[in-house]
Amino acid sequence: MSYIPKAVILLSGGLDSTTTLGIAKADGFEVYALSFRYGQRHQVELDNATNVAKLMGVAKHIVLDIDLRLFGGSALTSDIEVPKNRSISDMDIGIPVTYVPARNTIFLSFALAWAEVLQAYNIYIGVNALDYSGYPDCRPEFINAYENMANLATKSAVEGLKRIKIHTPLIELTKSQIIKKGLALDIDYSITSSCYDPKANGAPCRACDSCQLREKGFAEAGLVDPLNIKFNNV
Amino acid sequence: MSYIPKAVILLSGGLDSTTTLGIAKADGFEVYALSFRYGQRHQVELDNATNVAKLMGVAKHIVLDIDLRLFGGSALTSDIEVPKNRSISDMDIGIPVTYVPARNTIFLSFALAWAEVLQAYNIYIGVNALDYSGYPDCRPEFINAYENMANLATKSAVEGLKRIKIHTPLIELTKSQIIKKGLALDIDYSITSSCYDPKANGAPCRACDSCQLREKGFAEAGLVDPLNIKFNNV
Repeated sequence: MSYIPKAVILLSGGLDSTTTLGIAKADGFEVYALSFRYGQRHQVELDNATNVAKLMGVAKHIVLDIDLRLFGGSALTSDIEVPKNRSISDMDIGIPVTYVPARNTIFLSFALAWAEVLQAYNIYIGVNALDYSGYPDCRPEFINAYENMANLATKSAVEGLKRIKIHTPLIELTKSQIIKKGLALDIDYSITSSCYDPKANGAPCRACDSCQLREKGFAEAGLVDPLNIKFNNV
Repeated sequence: MSYIPKAVILLSGGLDSTTTLGIAKADGFEVYALSFRYGQRHQVELDNATNVAKLMGVAKHIVLDIDLRLFGGSALTSDIEVPKNRSISDMDIGIPVTYVPARNTIFLSFALAWAEVLQAYNIYIGVNALDYSGYPDCRPEFINAYENMANLATKSAVEGLKRIKIHTPLIELTKSQIIKKGLALDIDYSITSSCYDPKANGAPCRACDSCQLREKGFAEAGLVDPLNIKFNNV
């Protein structure tokens, strides 16, 4: 029996994390997917993650409950309005209200815990430093510092076993490059959703920052988003 | 009105974190205490934390639910037996089964999130690298790497505001030095409990590593543990 190495992936069921899951599988890992019910206003994100995990064949999918609403401070976890119809150039200015304080730090810490229990030494996260909405915890310098910390935090660090690697295969790609990469891996983007404020039937709003960045990505790749076809949104 | 700076503290209600809370207050901070219901087997830990937070006058106390039992891998979050009656010298060998994978990394990440929302730049954690049971995430090199990462993770990092500091006032103290420091700050140790496996009435087992380290600390300080007096355990 051959040994298949394990990887833990943070999966929201959006375009980026689903592409990252496809890459982790193509890299030869048995994939363990982790999602969070963190107080986000829309259940559709978790439905998507569960569906993506199932259709793409992960070894196990865990949805963890962490109530970030207790802290507040973000449009995604409180009653602050999600901004709509901002121009792409406006998104480059400052950190938007959709930023959730320390979210990736928290998510990666749970991934690290699970990786340690699984004896997995690889963690995948679909952060992106180009079309990234200005979040501090999507930058390469953050990821490098996190990886350094992770290698001092765990049993394997003390016992001198393997190093933990945080994989960020999308970090330097544009949205259209991510889409092309995913299509080459046969990813069905109609099962993903990236919207911060979807309609009751799960259709994207096409006005929030995330929808606009996605739309721009498909346009630049010369493609129509299959999610819009699914919802007769074209 | 004078401005009182805020600090977030990780509070278990044990001897170390309660002493750390006393130090944070003596340092002049308005203190926000954070505890976790993380799947530990004993409710007594959270009752203690709530009681300590109340009696020592914190600005706010939040208890967060995070179910680390979904990952398993520790005697504190699964059915693995808590070791009893180990000699103190045995505790120096390897990492015990009471280690919870990446626990301090996870706890600090929530403290970081709350600190960011509160605009607090100080986080206190009562880790101890001497009488520390061999946990990797209690070592100074871990704390330094965490602080470095935290200063790249957050809004204040990007916007060039104040640096975040992780305070570890106990990290180089022996248990008896911690106790003496706490008594000088008028801390009532009868309200704290450090036991991994307390009895139904909250009395410490006096046999787990944590109880033994505490007992040794009081003995070396030439004192009787007021917790044992409370439970007629002397």
